[in-house]
This record gives sequence, structure tokens and C-alpha cells, in this order.
Amino acid sequence: MAALRIVNGTVLTMAPDQEPIAEGVVCTQGGVISYAGPAEQAPEPADEQVIDASGCVVLPGLVNAHTHLAMTLFRGYADDMILQEWLEDWIWPAEMRLRPEDVYWGSLLGACEMLRFGVTCFNDMYHMPEQAVQAAIDSGIRACPSGVLLGFLPNAEQLLEEAIAFVAELRQQNHPRIHPMLAPHAIYTCPDEILLKVGEGAVEAGVPIHIHLCETASEVQDSYDEHGESPVAHLNALGLLDVPMLAAHCVHLSEEDIALLAEKQVGIAHCPTSNMKLASGFAPVPALLEAGAVVGLGTDGCASNNNLDMFEEAHLAALLHKAHSGDPTTLPAHTALAMATRLSAQALGLGDIIGTLEVGKRADIILVDMSSAHLQPPRDPISHLIYAAHGSDVRTTIVEGQVVMNDGELLTVDEAQVIARATQCAAHVVEADG
Amino acid sequence: MAALRIVNGTVLTMAPDQEPIAEGVVCTQGGVISYAGPAEQAPEPADEQVIDASGCVVLPGLVNAHTHLAMTLFRGYADDMILQEWLEDWIWPAEMRLRPEDVYWGSLLGACEMLRFGVTCFNDMYHMPEQAVQAAIDSGIRACPSGVLLGFLPNAEQLLEEAIAFVAELRQQNHPRIHPMLAPHAIYTCPDEILLKVGEGAVEAGVPIHIHLCETASEVQDSYDEHGESPVAHLNALGLLDVPMLAAHCVHLSEEDIALLAEKQVGIAHCPTSNMKLASGFAPVPALLEAGAVVGLGTDGCASNNNLDMFEEAHLAALLHKAHSGDPTTLPAHTALAMATRLSAQALGLGDIIGTLEVGKRADIILVDMSSAHLQPPRDPISHLIYAAHGSDVRTTIVEGQVVMNDGELLTVDEAQVIARATQCAAHVVEADG
Repeated sequence: MAALRIVNGTVLTMAPDQEPIAEGVVCTQGGVISYAGPAEQAPEPADEQVIDASGCVVLPGLVNAHTHLAMTLFRGYADDMILQEWLEDWIWPAEMRLRPEDVYWGSLLGACEMLRFGVTCFNDMYHMPEQAVQAAIDSGIRACPSGVLLGFLPNAEQLLEEAIAFVAELRQQNHPRIHPMLAPHAIYTCPDEILLKVGEGAVEAGVPIHIHLCETASEVQDSYDEHGESPVAHLNALGLLDVPMLAAHCVHLSEEDIALLAEKQVGIAHCPTSNMKLASGFAPVPALLEAGAVVGLGTDGCASNNNLDMFEEAHLAALLHKAHSGDPTTLPAHTALAMATRLSAQALGLGDIIGTLEVGKRADIILVDMSSAHLQPPRDPISHLIYAAHGSDVRTTIVEGQVVMNDGELLTVDEAQVIARATQCAAHVVEADG
Repeated sequence: MAALRIVNGTVLTMAPDQEPIAEGVVCTQGGVISYAGPAEQAPEPADEQVIDASGCVVLPGLVNAHTHLAMTLFRGYADDMILQEWLEDWIWPAEMRLRPEDVYWGSLLGACEMLRFGVTCFNDMYHMPEQAVQAAIDSGIRACPSGVLLGFLPNAEQLLEEAIAFVAELRQQNHPRIHPMLAPHAIYTCPDEILLKVGEGAVEAGVPIHIHLCETASEVQDSYDEHGESPVAHLNALGLLDVPMLAAHCVHLSEEDIALLAEKQVGIAHCPTSNMKLASGFAPVPALLEAGAVVGLGTDGCASNNNLDMFEEAHLAALLHKAHSGDPTTLPAHTALAMATRLSAQALGLGDIIGTLEVGKRADIILVDMSSAHLQPPRDPISHLIYAAHGSDVRTTIVEGQVVMNDGELLTVDEAQVIARATQCAAHVVEADG
């Protein structure tokens, strides 16, 4: 892998309180950042591949903290309906027809979209996770794969053992871009005994837990009815908040829940598009951030979004909480961009290796072309990234020091083939009965 | 101007209840649509310029029903602050420094962005409106220009007379793409005697009124305090709702207001991004639509958005009202797309000439490339347009039968020059004191 030297761009390291560096330089060696700072202090040019970032902002790759990647197959399949109808009449029957190749090509389609849009890492929860792993390895993206543990299935215990074995195997392979997790779907689909075993398994394997938490009001009400406490309090009572955890959604929270999530430094994936599209509610993100919680951003799956554009999530996070709070100073642009990068990385337990451009971290870097009319005149790049840019403004995507997308071209996979195969798989999955 | 024949695309005419036409054909002659329908029934090919729309959706150009176009100069200048501070400390002082060339180049920068993003018509309210007119004529976009009448100025009467004369002159010139309006800023900035004269002037000139209405809670409270009635009721008492009118925002409305706006068929420009970014409140769009009101969409100016992407407004409208109502069936994709096209055109009083692809209407047409990974697999094109597409997916923009943007290239203006000049103007306007 060639060492890279990215020159002439405005560098946003996204390290806390770091100002934009005009005409900055970022160097990589062996997939790791070896320099990020002003041109004057940069090391002498060596035998590096030089990338000219003129007119671009250079920043850490965006981190999608919660998705179900192969659900790209369901994009546009079932919109504008209530959650139960969506799940029971549309999504679940289609998912019964999933074959391994469907999950592979669906995941790869999603990886193409994310790499185009500057997403360099995604946290997945989906069936047949070995397929998402393969798609990540093939496309060059970084992944946190996990299956979906549904504790109500008759063979739940066996599935859990298989999931733990899968994670152990991945940990042993030690692929530099694969960071597995264990994913019990939610407390309302996993009985306590399964959750406890997941906790033990996660500690033993040294991996975090990925779970849906407090997404809907009914989930919370059911928890009070069944356990006499909130889902957050219940997970804490089970000891699970002491295991590293990524909790997706966290919409319906009490003040005590917020304090507990902050105290335990549970990673939170805020998914504004999904919460709006499914009318799940308004997550108390400003209060979570105020309490010191670690709040990243996720797209959720493509059946409830319907894209994987993390610029849109950051944009929406900035807008939604202004609207909901009635205060236009809420969640300013720099906070939204931190959520899409540093905080998402931290939420996934990967804060030490990705999320900022700092020496020693993995070289997950994007160049955003700011020269288009809609990003002019030149001004605060963070404002333009959050309030005016789209994923399609990303010019170059680098993961682990490898250029995987440049000038609209994916360099790792044959995108036309991916689209053709994914289209066939989508037809199989949703139209097999038709 | 060459006649056009657009073939091989999926045609969405956006006429009510019309289904997508696979492999449809759209023909234009002399800037007017001469055919839109299935290939089988299309007229024989004549001496036309053929546009291959393979892989594209062909639909009416999007109509931006409310903006302040030259405020592109202020993009990213003042975010994340309360309205009064934004206006009084940032925007108004900068606007004091505006020269005619600033308004021209700022408007042209906005026109470039809109044409790239498939917006073929915009409704403007800004100082020195002759500059926006020139920018529209030069760039090839369709415009509804108007100045800003601030009734509290000492020379308000004179300014009104000038505005009426300006409109009369434009009406006389009868440019096919210029549709002037008269724009009193709002009821809280225009005393009744000015509003009444605006109404007379509008009737005399045969143009609609463009006004901000019920944008903030304080505007409504002030109206009750001063007039003992809501702003909508007050305009009605003055007889102004019987003049064709485009009312921007309409956030804070009573049930009576909603009924009145529907009864009088006042055109409404819903501006979801602006309402969210400035925390103005949640417009009762589902109730307005239910009552039969004419609700289009607008971006508002670039200092409160910060872009001119109508795909984003349609997307946000679909999401926001699901979130606010708690009902995910609210404002489905086809309604959002109708708001961005047919309903916006109707709201501007241009429903007879633009907004749908129907024989006899002006040929304002866009081609959206659906072949990218984020719009795959192929499925309901309306869902993909609303929930997954961006303005940058527009491949071709046609206004009045003229191809003005194709494959990312603007054919009417030198975009590099526009960006350079607008950047200079922006520096003058915001940094003259610095």
C-alpha cells in the first residue's frame, strides 16, 4: 500500500477544539496517519503518492453508527406506513426469502453508496453477517459486523453460541478493518437469560454489544409493564451497561435514563431520518450531549431512511433539534459534524483508532469538493458541510490508507456488476411470491 | 430554439393521479410541450433534437415558491443563532452594503445552483429586483421577481410607486420567463394603508402579492395585540385575500386561518428547512392540505437554509410532518413531489403554464439520473426521488424548451466566472467593515 501525502486542502482534524487548517497536509504510512497539520511543519516529501486536495476539505471519514446494510435491497419497497404493518406485512416476509448471495450483494450495494458518500466505517446488524464481512473486505470499507439475535426463536441459545463463535473467529483473523460485535436485537425480543449470556459472551470475546434501545414509546411502556423499570434501567440491572455497548435510537428516555447512559458512557447512535420517517419520536439529543453522553449518528437501514448519506443525518440532526427545542442555537454545525465523525467512532468503541485525523490513527480520510456553486462563496467549511453539502460532494474516500473511491469511481469493486446483481437479488427477495 | 424529443425515460407528468409512464416520450416545440405520454402514441419523429433519457426519470422542473436569491452571498455567514440577532447584528448591516452588482452576481450564483439541482422557476423577494430579473434572463431560469416593500421606511409610498411601475414595465416587456409580483414584506413591517395600496396596485397590474405570513409566534401575537385578530384574518379584513397571493411560511395558524387560506385559495410556500433552522415552529401542512389549501415548497434564502435544493425541501416535508404528527402515513412521497412541482406552480398563480408535463404548458423539464448506487435497485421512482435522491442527481435541466444544464455543465453562463464574481461580492458585503 502506497504512502499518501494529501496537500493543498483545508484540513479538519475533528480533534476537539481544533481549528480548520488552511493549506494543511495529511500523510499516511502503512494505513496509519503519520502527519496531519500545517504545511510548514510537515515532514519532507518522501516516496509518497501525492493527492492534490485543492478546493477540498480533508476530514475523517464519516462513521455510520447504526445500519442494517443489506436492506438496501428494500429501498423504496415499503414507505409511508405504520411500523407494525411495515415489519409484519412487508419486511419480515421478504426477509424469509433471503439467501446468502442476497445479503452479500445487498451489502455490497450499500458499501458502494457509503464509499461514494464518504462513509468509511459502518456498524451493521443483520442476518448472515459473514456476508457483510465479505462485502466489507471486498469493497475496502471498515465494518463492525454482527448478526441479529432474536431471543424468542426456539433455537436462540444455539444461535447465540454460533454468534459468539463467529465473533471469536473474526477476532482471531484480526482483519484490520473488521471489528465484530454481538447484537441482541432489543430487550423486547430477547429474554433476560439471553441478554445475560450475551453480556458474558461479549466480555469473554472482548467485543461491544449492539442493541436497539428505547426506539418507540411502546417498547418503554412494555418494559415498565413487564419489569417495572425502563429499558435502560433494566439493562443496567442486568449489568449490561458495564459492557461496552452501542445503543441505537434512544428516543424515549427519562432523566434517570439520560444520566445513566452518560455515566456508563454507553455509545448512542442517533438516527434522525429513521425516527422521523417511522414517526418514532424526538430523541433527547441535546440533553444527552449536555449530560456528557457519547452520541454518534446512524442512518438505520435503507427501508426506513432510504439512503446511507451521513451528511444528511448530520444535517437533519442539526435541524431537528432546533425545531423540537424551539431554540435555533441548539446543536450547532460543529457538534453535528463531531457526531458524524469523532463521536460515532467513540460510540462504537473505536475512538482510539478512527474518528479524527491524528497521528497514529488509521488513515480513514475523505476529501469533499467545495468548489461547486452550492458550496460557494467559500466560508466556514463546517457550516457548508452540515447545512449545504451532500454525500455526492465527496471526491475521494480513503480507508486504512487505501484510496477506494476517487472522482466518482469505485476502485475496489465493479459497481455496474454490483448494481446488476443487487437488482436481481432485490427482485428475488421482494417478488418471489408475486 | 430546437424542438426536443426526450425518449427512453420514465415519465412522471405530475398531473393528478397520473401513473409513471415507462419508456415514455416528451416532445417540445417553440418552448411548449407538444406531447407527453407513451412511446406508442407519440407523434412521428420530426426534425428534433433527441435527448436519450435512458436510466432517467423525466418530470416537471421543480418550482421554488419562496426565496431571497441573492442571499447566496450570505451562505454560511450566520448560523445557529436566534432570529433577532441574526437579522439585526448580521444580515441587515451586511445588506446595507449591497451594490447592484452584488445582487446580480449573488442571484446568478443561486441560479447556477438551482439549475444544477433541477429548479426551473423561483419566486424571489429581494432588494434591487431588476438585478434578479437580469440574472434570470441571462441564466435561462424562470423567475417571479419582486422587491421588498418595507412600509416603515420614510419613503415607503414612493418605493411602492416605483415597485408598481417596475411591475408594469415588466408586464409590458412580457418576457416569457419573467412573472413579476408585488411584495410587501409582512403585515408587521407594512401598515394597513400601504397594504391596501399594494392590493390596488396588484389588481391593476394583474400580478399576485408575495408576502411573509405567520412565520413566527410573535408575529401572530403582535397582530392580536394590534388588530385584535390573526394576521390571516387581518389580511382578509383588508380584502387582500381576494387578490392572488403567495404567502410564505404560514407556520402559526388557527383553524379559522386554515379554513380561510383554503377557501381563498391563497398560495402557500412551506419552507421546512428554514422553519427548522430558525426554530420558527411546525407549519400545519397536513391540515392545510386536508382543507384543500394550495401548499407548495420553498427553500427560503441561503442564510436560513443554507442551500437551494428543492429535493431536500420535499424530503424534509415528507419526514417532518410524520415526526410532528406521530403518524408515519402523513405526507407520503407522492404528495411531497406534487408540492415541489404542481402545487408550487399553482401557489404562484402559474398552474396553467408550468408544474406538470401536459400538452400546451411551457417546456420546463428535468431528467434525474436514477442509475447511481444510492437510487438502486430500481423501484417506485417517486419514492426514490423523495427519500433517496439529491439535487445533484439531476442530469439535464430544460426551461422554456431550452437545455440550460446538461451532464453537470451550465450552458447559459460561465459558472467559473459567476463563482469568482460572487465570491468577490460576498467579501465586499460581509467584510467591508472587517
